[in-house]
Amino acid sequence: MRALVKAAPGPGMEVREIPTPSCGPSDVLIRVHYAGVCGTDLHIWEWDAWASGRLKPPVTIGHEFAGEIVEVGVEARAEGLLAVGDRVTAEGHIVCGHCLPCHTGDAHVCTRTRIIGVDRDGAFADFIAMPASNVMKLDGIPAEVGAILDPTGNAVHTVLEGGRVAGSAVLVLGCGPIGCFAVGVARAVGASLVVASDFNPRRLEIARRMGAHVTLNPGNDDVVARCRELTGGDGMDLVCEMSGHPTGHQTAFSAARLGGRINFLGTPSQTTEVNFARDVIFKGLTLYGVTGRRMYDTWQQMFRLLRAGQFDPRPVVTHRFRLEQIAEAIQVIKDGEAGKVILEVSAER
Amino acid sequence: MRALVKAAPGPGMEVREIPTPSCGPSDVLIRVHYAGVCGTDLHIWEWDAWASGRLKPPVTIGHEFAGEIVEVGVEARAEGLLAVGDRVTAEGHIVCGHCLPCHTGDAHVCTRTRIIGVDRDGAFADFIAMPASNVMKLDGIPAEVGAILDPTGNAVHTVLEGGRVAGSAVLVLGCGPIGCFAVGVARAVGASLVVASDFNPRRLEIARRMGAHVTLNPGNDDVVARCRELTGGDGMDLVCEMSGHPTGHQTAFSAARLGGRINFLGTPSQTTEVNFARDVIFKGLTLYGVTGRRMYDTWQQMFRLLRAGQFDPRPVVTHRFRLEQIAEAIQVIKDGEAGKVILEVSAER
Amino acid sequence: MRALVKAAPGPGMEVREIPTPSCGPSDVLIRVHYAGVCGTDLHIWEWDAWASGRLKPPVTIGHEFAGEIVEVGVEARAEGLLAVGDRVTAEGHIVCGHCLPCHTGDAHVCTRTRIIGVDRDGAFADFIAMPASNVMKLDGIPAEVGAILDPTGNAVHTVLEGGRVAGSAVLVLGCGPIGCFAVGVARAVGASLVVASDFNPRRLEIARRMGAHVTLNPGNDDVVARCRELTGGDGMDLVCEMSGHPTGHQTAFSAARLGGRINFLGTPSQTTEVNFARDVIFKGLTLYGVTGRRMYDTWQQMFRLLRAGQFDPRPVVTHRFRLEQIAEAIQVIKDGEAGKVILEVSAER
Amino acid sequence: MRALVKAAPGPGMEVREIPTPSCGPSDVLIRVHYAGVCGTDLHIWEWDAWASGRLKPPVTIGHEFAGEIVEVGVEARAEGLLAVGDRVTAEGHIVCGHCLPCHTGDAHVCTRTRIIGVDRDGAFADFIAMPASNVMKLDGIPAEVGAILDPTGNAVHTVLEGGRVAGSAVLVLGCGPIGCFAVGVARAVGASLVVASDFNPRRLEIARRMGAHVTLNPGNDDVVARCRELTGGDGMDLVCEMSGHPTGHQTAFSAARLGGRINFLGTPSQTTEVNFARDVIFKGLTLYGVTGRRMYDTWQQMFRLLRAGQFDPRPVVTHRFRLEQIAEAIQVIKDGEAGKVILEVSAER
Repeated sequence: MRALVKAAPGPGMEVREIPTPSCGPSDVLIRVHYAGVCGTDLHIWEWDAWASGRLKPPVTIGHEFAGEIVEVGVEARAEGLLAVGDRVTAEGHIVCGHCLPCHTGDAHVCTRTRIIGVDRDGAFADFIAMPASNVMKLDGIPAEVGAILDPTGNAVHTVLEGGRVAGSAVLVLGCGPIGCFAVGVARAVGASLVVASDFNPRRLEIARRMGAHVTLNPGNDDVVARCRELTGGDGMDLVCEMSGHPTGHQTAFSAARLGGRINFLGTPSQTTEVNFARDVIFKGLTLYGVTGRRMYDTWQQMFRLLRAGQFDPRPVVTHRFRLEQIAEAIQVIKDGEAGKVILEVSAER
Repeated sequence: MRALVKAAPGPGMEVREIPTPSCGPSDVLIRVHYAGVCGTDLHIWEWDAWASGRLKPPVTIGHEFAGEIVEVGVEARAEGLLAVGDRVTAEGHIVCGHCLPCHTGDAHVCTRTRIIGVDRDGAFADFIAMPASNVMKLDGIPAEVGAILDPTGNAVHTVLEGGRVAGSAVLVLGCGPIGCFAVGVARAVGASLVVASDFNPRRLEIARRMGAHVTLNPGNDDVVARCRELTGGDGMDLVCEMSGHPTGHQTAFSAARLGGRINFLGTPSQTTEVNFARDVIFKGLTLYGVTGRRMYDTWQQMFRLLRAGQFDPRPVVTHRFRLEQIAEAIQVIKDGEAGKVILEVSAER
Repeated sequence: MRALVKAAPGPGMEVREIPTPSCGPSDVLIRVHYAGVCGTDLHIWEWDAWASGRLKPPVTIGHEFAGEIVEVGVEARAEGLLAVGDRVTAEGHIVCGHCLPCHTGDAHVCTRTRIIGVDRDGAFADFIAMPASNVMKLDGIPAEVGAILDPTGNAVHTVLEGGRVAGSAVLVLGCGPIGCFAVGVARAVGASLVVASDFNPRRLEIARRMGAHVTLNPGNDDVVARCRELTGGDGMDLVCEMSGHPTGHQTAFSAARLGGRINFLGTPSQTTEVNFARDVIFKGLTLYGVTGRRMYDTWQQMFRLLRAGQFDPRPVVTHRFRLEQIAEAIQVIKDGEAGKVILEVSAER
Repeated sequence: MRALVKAAPGPGMEVREIPTPSCGPSDVLIRVHYAGVCGTDLHIWEWDAWASGRLKPPVTIGHEFAGEIVEVGVEARAEGLLAVGDRVTAEGHIVCGHCLPCHTGDAHVCTRTRIIGVDRDGAFADFIAMPASNVMKLDGIPAEVGAILDPTGNAVHTVLEGGRVAGSAVLVLGCGPIGCFAVGVARAVGASLVVASDFNPRRLEIARRMGAHVTLNPGNDDVVARCRELTGGDGMDLVCEMSGHPTGHQTAFSAARLGGRINFLGTPSQTTEVNFARDVIFKGLTLYGVTGRRMYDTWQQMFRLLRAGQFDPRPVVTHRFRLEQIAEAIQVIKDGEAGKVILEVSAER
């Protein structure tokens, strides 16, 4: 089959013919229709410090996808819940199910997590084998949407963690794809005020289409002052930090209200100087680091919002490429002008 | 009456005769029996940047106390809940009751908080007038214990925030009085492992008397490595950061387990460099800044533990002074050798 | 001033001239513009067992209202938060602030609760004196809406208790005014499916206007079967029991999903036979009894939803009367054909 | 191998030779050392309405056990977490992992639950095959304790659900084995007052040994009055209803404080008349139905309490029998004089 492979240490990826993965007893084999390209894939392409420290080539890349089941392992078949022909997506974190986080509702930070497309073969390929327990039926959700539920789930996790979004004032810092998804999710779950901030006017335009009440550009706007103004002086109940920049962090600390919350998803490449006394302790803030998706709370909430039509991530998709065009896909992400980028891997029947 | 007053900008305090405060309609007037001396009082004595920016002399100092009601205002009397002769203590944060934090369970970070002994006259005096709503009956708790329930409440708040201490592994970083109280609270509420860390062997000795299973001295011990060892490699479920030092913060981030929690109480005088990607996001941590005491959840939980004898803060008390000996009291705190320091203000009848 | 008074034991009420209440130091005096008539007022009119056991005539009736501050007590004035001319409404439960429920976030079940219009003089009058701590500014919310925030708050409390409404399937059993408000709240906070059930087609019509996705009439529809159908067999995540009938209870138990929740607001006049094994234990259900409004979480959430325009209770209002027309107002409620009934007490200036 | 089998519809069970179960790829095969006999086994023995409606003979009985791994399936082996020779116990609810409850933290009420010893072959046998995901290492917990962690986990679930036991007042209604375990758990997690109630003095004696502060016999004591007295009039924060009797339910409703909680575990054979207005709504109560154990939160908390020596369930064990003595074991349970009854199935090596 075709697969987009990091063949050896160093930059780039290549499309290769490799054997179709075998389907273990607890697995299903899935023909991939669409896949999403992520900032992580850019890091892998560029072979930065993180990528070279973690990946063991050769490995098939890609962790966001949707497709169709073509084979069901014997144990999975006995369960009777998945069948050949089912349209599905999957959680890309394969977890142990036995460690303390797995046993206490935090499987998304399982001590033995293996991520598809990073620690084992991924989804930029004609087929992928996945443990049945990670696979979920789309049941009417379009395959293209199904292909981007991994990052959409990041947004759902970021917005809903803390549990009191209804009626609240939410600031989304950084309007990359996940930030834009977060805007849509916050609206869907009843936030009263959603403010989105980014330096890039095109991204702010997408944020507006996803439902942001107010968009701010830190190049022109005093984000903290505007947030106070918009909330009668209180500040924001929830800040979704999606930028991963120390300046974003400073804005987050200043914009959050007394007793408020900041959920951090954007992964910085540098450290941030934090004034814990002024910005955390005297404000009584709660901070939370977002990894992956709650398994499977996040997925259930996301499916319900999507199926009820309360939220549609598709306005964030700006580019579509074929598998062979990966270099172009990587380039538009690098240029910073793209929303979500999708690979069309194989035709839906 | 006698009062310990910051009379004018600059270091020091003095005992003065000032008028007994009047008792407003919603107030009670309390004769002070015992008062606790706090690190905050040291900052005020020394007139550091924080103190000079906040206090408006002349102001009577002191925010930890217990005593006896000698007068009840007309409105408070109508409520019928407090009476002359009642032995009481009080929450020292006087809050507005109308702002967003006050209305949503976070009155401890009320936007209009006025703290006794800081923003208005305090408890190092023969009498103090307090709003009846802040006053709580000791009902059998010894007055000396009542005098230190403000810092004990800080510890209860720090340990219980997050709500899953039973059966968990708790690291207390910094064994000043509040850290030592936290050790005792953690034991009382069913922590399975309580590790206490400090550079000062005398403080570790107090921590041991308060029930620490293991005490570590970062001068000799690798705190993070020992915590992993003691938890089968997992790390600590909850870190109570009481040191307020950037090195304490680094230990906290490294010692907390995946999906764990750090509650920050120690207020640093400098910033900390935080690696959000490695230490917060990929670990799925929750961080929380502790101010004051939850009003009045913290007090209720504390009273119950104390009355049932599950926890006794008295082993932490190392020094007792008369009001006039304030300079000595401040000095033993400054020397770093003291546990909790108590002022004996007037005799219990 | 004019006041609608239960003058003596027995049915009925009468409009009387009584002295304007005095404004205590911690009170504000409010000129009443609009007031809401509640099922409770019907019980008081009819002087049923509950009413005759609780009220001590003479007492001015009425607990739902909005108006304008005309006087501020001396202590309340010192706070500086309320002023003559402010448009306000108020929480009608006057609580002690000292008991265990008050101290632990459950002031709505304060052991010493005194309800206006029941335990002390109420709002069906030209003026009412209220403790400043119970009074909230409307800040742009129309006075007529302000007059019905007590029952709207009941609905907010019922829908939000449990904290996971976003994306969920909600069944509202009983479409009286509070049921219809609940439909609107559930939609505003992101429920994916809102089903409303009542025997009365007019009430179902109001529920539809408030946003119910599906309305069912137990006279024609198999409510439980339809709920299962609409949820792919799972059943409802949350049932808001507003009917107060044992048959409603049975429907609630059967319609709730495994691991689901039922919040009970409708107060039955008879007992219900509960099959705890089948309907509670083996289903892993959570049940919760709704009294009043969380003080003041519920109010904050409600104000935000209203001010952002996410929810408008006015379609539920079907009748308006003058104070002197109380007998007519009571009659339309008794007939069961009314939505919310409002008294116009005095003109807004 | 030997197995205790319900061979055909009707009362009784018999020890038979049957084939040793095969170990599937995701399974482990366990030699059973000890097993616990449960009230459920009595129902199965007697072949009551519930049993005859649910079991499909022939089926091997028994769902509480501990033993030693003798074979690891190929998929389970690949995980590398379980090995031949490991001392283990197991969660007896085998769940689908795909349904809404499984996906949202409520796997204990999975819509497709299959219970060992009820819906599939159980543990009263020389060997049992279990899915590896349900199996947990004892790691130092004695095998006899390991054999009774299913009911001990019921108690942990009952006591900890709601999350605020530290400092609280807990009433345990019904001192069968799970009630007695609950007493010990409540003490271990910091309850300030644990009251236990039962008609049987021997059971009260066990409750006292497990740490009950006060034991009451409804035959002589006014349980509700005593609870009020012991809590200064407030009533109990948490009632653990283990009796399954309508009179126990009434006591629970009356003894619970305003804003309190009742967790129901005892499964009644009849319905209860509930006064929802008086006992649930006006009290603002939360009720919760306890099924099984939270997977695997409950297990983690239980293991930690046990390993730290905070809690020991062994004083509850009153009888030990060999597998062949099942009739005697059933008889002592039926007599109502037994605490926990254990079967010694095969010798530990």
